[in-house]
Amino acid sequence: MTLSNDWIVGFIDGEGCFSFSLIKNENLRFGYQIQGEFTVVQHKRDIQLLYELKTYFGCGSVAVNHGDRWHYRVKNLEQFLTIIIPFFEKHQLKTVKKFQLPVFKEICLKLQAKEHLNETGFDEIKELVKKLSALKR
Amino acid sequence: MTLSNDWIVGFIDGEGCFSFSLIKNENLRFGYQIQGEFTVVQHKRDIQLLYELKTYFGCGSVAVNHGDRWHYRVKNLEQFLTIIIPFFEKHQLKTVKKFQLPVFKEICLKLQAKEHLNETGFDEIKELVKKLSALKR
Repeated sequence: MTLSNDWIVGFIDGEGCFSFSLIKNENLRFGYQIQGEFTVVQHKRDIQLLYELKTYFGCGSVAVNHGDRWHYRVKNLEQFLTIIIPFFEKHQLKTVKKFQLPVFKEICLKLQAKEHLNETGFDEIKELVKKLSALKR
Repeated sequence: MTLSNDWIVGFIDGEGCFSFSLIKNENLRFGYQIQGEFTVVQHKRDIQLLYELKTYFGCGSVAVNHGDRWHYRVKNLEQFLTIIIPFFEKHQLKTVKKFQLPVFKEICLKLQAKEHLNETGFDEIKELVKKLSALKR
């Protein structure tokens, strides 16, 4: 099966999800871990398609989501910045997800610059995570 | 906004639905109306995209689905046979929906041939509607 750029964009407009979560972790300075995700969930009947996405992007993993649903997921900051975000900057999304992408990128860049290690930076990232979430469908 | 064929296929692989329902109607010979649907549901924020699909296919309608969700929907047998099905025969779906398309088409052809007006034909169509539904995700 060959996936075209446009098919991938259409499919991600339908089924993809860009998100960041704050995960409580008392061992960290501000009490939270900031974790990003690019995820596509499908019924296991279409698991082959998830593996095709993994091959296409050359990163991420395929695993059970819950029940008979599986996901393709990327969680690595460097892979967001070098693979996932550049792909969707080149091939523009058409749903409201196109407005999520620059916010998702801004969070990634702040994390890469270690801004989450100072209080102002951490608070700014927290606000961006809220903004990203509010843009979700 | 310009929609490419591949984007549409990807988006429909994600969000589209091909279905037939049996709607109870005691005025009809076998007690049921057989109604087909090609539907895409989106949050109202992406209503523009639904209108783009309507323009692209040159048929169907956009309306409230429920709450803040809207749909683009085609319900006309001739439009299935002359527009929707030929499009997806030319531009192949990649999810299990590709297995639904020939069943959806078979039902359309039987309805076009008025096979639902005799008992054997009606029963065959009923079985195909079940088969289509079982292929759903």
